[in-house]
Amino acid sequence: MTDTPKLIAPRLPRGFEDRSARDIAAVDAMIARIRAVYERYGFDPVETPLFEYTETLGKFLPDTDRPNAGVFSLQDDDEQWLSLRYDLTAPLARYFAENFESLPKPYRSYRQGYVFRNEKPGPGRFRQFMQFDADTVGAAGPAADAEMCMMMADTMDALGLSGQYVVRVNNRKVLDGVLEGIGLGPADPARSLVVLRAIDKLDRLGDDGVRQLLGKGREDESGDFTKGAELGADAIGKVLAYTGASGQGEDLFGTLRGLVSGNARGEEGVSELEAMAALFAAAGYGPDRIRIDPSVVRGLEYYTGPVFEIELTFEVTNEKGQPVVFGSVGGGGRYDGLVSRFRKDPVPATGFSIGVSRLANALKLTGNLVASDVIGPVVVLVMDREAISDYQQMVAELRNAGIRAEMYLGSSGMNAQMKYANRRNAPAVVIQGSNEREEGVVTIKDMVAGLEAAKAFTDNAEMKAARPAQFSAPRTGLVEAVERVLRADGGAA
Amino acid sequence: MTDTPKLIAPRLPRGFEDRSARDIAAVDAMIARIRAVYERYGFDPVETPLFEYTETLGKFLPDTDRPNAGVFSLQDDDEQWLSLRYDLTAPLARYFAENFESLPKPYRSYRQGYVFRNEKPGPGRFRQFMQFDADTVGAAGPAADAEMCMMMADTMDALGLSGQYVVRVNNRKVLDGVLEGIGLGPADPARSLVVLRAIDKLDRLGDDGVRQLLGKGREDESGDFTKGAELGADAIGKVLAYTGASGQGEDLFGTLRGLVSGNARGEEGVSELEAMAALFAAAGYGPDRIRIDPSVVRGLEYYTGPVFEIELTFEVTNEKGQPVVFGSVGGGGRYDGLVSRFRKDPVPATGFSIGVSRLANALKLTGNLVASDVIGPVVVLVMDREAISDYQQMVAELRNAGIRAEMYLGSSGMNAQMKYANRRNAPAVVIQGSNEREEGVVTIKDMVAGLEAAKAFTDNAEMKAARPAQFSAPRTGLVEAVERVLRADGGAA
Repeated sequence: MTDTPKLIAPRLPRGFEDRSARDIAAVDAMIARIRAVYERYGFDPVETPLFEYTETLGKFLPDTDRPNAGVFSLQDDDEQWLSLRYDLTAPLARYFAENFESLPKPYRSYRQGYVFRNEKPGPGRFRQFMQFDADTVGAAGPAADAEMCMMMADTMDALGLSGQYVVRVNNRKVLDGVLEGIGLGPADPARSLVVLRAIDKLDRLGDDGVRQLLGKGREDESGDFTKGAELGADAIGKVLAYTGASGQGEDLFGTLRGLVSGNARGEEGVSELEAMAALFAAAGYGPDRIRIDPSVVRGLEYYTGPVFEIELTFEVTNEKGQPVVFGSVGGGGRYDGLVSRFRKDPVPATGFSIGVSRLANALKLTGNLVASDVIGPVVVLVMDREAISDYQQMVAELRNAGIRAEMYLGSSGMNAQMKYANRRNAPAVVIQGSNEREEGVVTIKDMVAGLEAAKAFTDNAEMKAARPAQFSAPRTGLVEAVERVLRADGGAA
Repeated sequence: MTDTPKLIAPRLPRGFEDRSARDIAAVDAMIARIRAVYERYGFDPVETPLFEYTETLGKFLPDTDRPNAGVFSLQDDDEQWLSLRYDLTAPLARYFAENFESLPKPYRSYRQGYVFRNEKPGPGRFRQFMQFDADTVGAAGPAADAEMCMMMADTMDALGLSGQYVVRVNNRKVLDGVLEGIGLGPADPARSLVVLRAIDKLDRLGDDGVRQLLGKGREDESGDFTKGAELGADAIGKVLAYTGASGQGEDLFGTLRGLVSGNARGEEGVSELEAMAALFAAAGYGPDRIRIDPSVVRGLEYYTGPVFEIELTFEVTNEKGQPVVFGSVGGGGRYDGLVSRFRKDPVPATGFSIGVSRLANALKLTGNLVASDVIGPVVVLVMDREAISDYQQMVAELRNAGIRAEMYLGSSGMNAQMKYANRRNAPAVVIQGSNEREEGVVTIKDMVAGLEAAKAFTDNAEMKAARPAQFSAPRTGLVEAVERVLRADGGAA
């Protein structure tokens, strides 16, 4: 190139991230474990492309009420709008509707992949991130929802999180029954939405804050005032009695039945929860793993029946140094409306989504499935450029014996080559100068033993005797000598 | 939902594809084998996001000379243009430049992922497809290029394609020397481009067609005329002598040296090919696996030194019913200009890209790594809705024993449930009606034995005796009975 164009600054786009070998190894191991559980449950993988027609995706963003905001879209050359998927559920609905005739029904499937949100990025909030979903389409009964919850519990156990999670289950219909009982619901959709949003803040504001939002309104710390739902004291009491209902089994179901008494939809919701609880009990999942919990308000505007959430219960320290529960790593529920957009006959569906990065982060914090430092290759140094074929041959021999190995490919001298080997985390280095070549020997440097020797000054001599950090071997015994070092490192590491 | 909105047609966007469980399993198995080879060679994984700033990607589409055409781009809300990556090389260059200080140099890495081309889709030509790349950045010498070729050969062997592939190697500098020798090159870039494009058609048009394009021009079958490079007979002869040069070792290098005699760049190219050939020989890669071949003209406008291509040599039948060689499944070369866009000091690089779908297709045709039918789950039928907890318990027992199992979750009767089990490829079905429940037994239907029995009418009775397609077992022995059937199927399948 004879022209010298202006240099371009190498910049990762705003809100995106590169992934290191270590992160890739940790997430791959996690995903393999999750897949094994899903497969055992009879789920099969399926994958859809990253683009869908924008009309296919619709307005189903589960965690926002700004339809179509936050989606990456562009117009195709035939004028049709395409969007990058923002979740894995809407594309599944399209796939199921398009392949309705050929798919088994009910259709159990799982999929993992990147989704995109065209939103303002923040710390730990990326515009491309990975989800791992499982869904059963075409099954109406609560048995399908219960299976989802049990599968999530088994997944957490498979990841080593036994005793550190709980799957919490609620039902949208029960809340609908409570709302209808106080004159809201379809009769007053605007105020119902205000109530839903108030309940959604329960985690953050507690009972008192929500009580204000259900009544006259609430002034926050900055002095901003949020208008309330203007409910009377009796109605507020009912809503909070619902979200605060505790206990399990007949204790809880009695309370809930009382709250929705006479409302068909609400009673249906309670029956579904009871049916699910019976299935959990039959299959041996106690309330320490899966519990009915009316305070779960996840995506209540999106789901149509049961909703569930996996909460990790161990404590971490937040950015203010306070101990907090790690919290949600995924959730889901029944969304009977999604496939119906494509087909006249109703198609019930239930599913679950895991936030892959967040779960991987939890595993890192708990010490589960953490990838240790990636083991580097054995590095064959290039001492003598003329003999490069000889070094290449050594590498080929090592590789053919299944040993991770490479020849140094740069142009630097011995010191830089040793630094490179260190940076690569090489377990051993192979050195052959011209004298050694004439004598038919190689020098093998044991990098792990070398490191240990450097650390343990006191019995340095002893260690050298037991396992010298550097030794000479006949060229013909190269593979055998390197294997010996790797075996010793494996034992010592 | 009380309103009935217009139904949306479920449509996969034009030029995109859904992937089945079978395809996913086959590609995953293939990728695992490739990764193992790359890891053994000392390469580490790295992953970049699907978006890059458009200016980062630049005009480096290797297989087209229409810069920026064919890229999916959109403007971010801060006015900057983003594009979906169209290959895995340009993002690597950005990554390397951005992390220059912290990366080991030379930097060996591999990555696999989707790339996007905003082009007219065609049969087998998708707008989202997967590539699998390996690159060494920061290594100038031909040893790095030679390593790429050996790694590709080992990869083909690891995939079971021994004896069915050849890695073909050429060098852009030799061609440059030939062009400069006939007064082209930097002296006449426009005509040089016409010559490059003519050579690029060698596969399709043969020597005669290319001879016309190097001379006055060529009329194709439809009567369209392509203007030629207007070379004289002597120059045409030199170009065709170059692309047609055959043999290996000193035979070939002698011919090439003669063709570029006195041209420094050409001679450098021949020396690089000789150095690579020496490394292949030292490491035991004969010309049956890797051969120098001046007719390789892959991406000559893009690469700056060695170029290489994996060709699969077995025959397949094309759409016209004619036998043709399967052809290229990947290739690469040295691209010293790409990172230099970000950094003043030169950064040499060499790499290789595999077309994942095309290679997977080749493996399907040769019977390597073909995923057999995905083994379905054991299906527990629901004979009696009242007893659903009992069926759920059976499924939980089977799953806890590591057996892939599911309870039928639909609402249909016995016949439809058996059809479902067939469609799911279930190896066994578990049935328990109310009488059986009272007796404490279950019926196990061996679906594989049932199928075989139906096929083999002659010794039906015999087979039934040896292995009945359906039998009764005590409820307490459910897991043991199902395991027995699965073991027998495993042996018979």
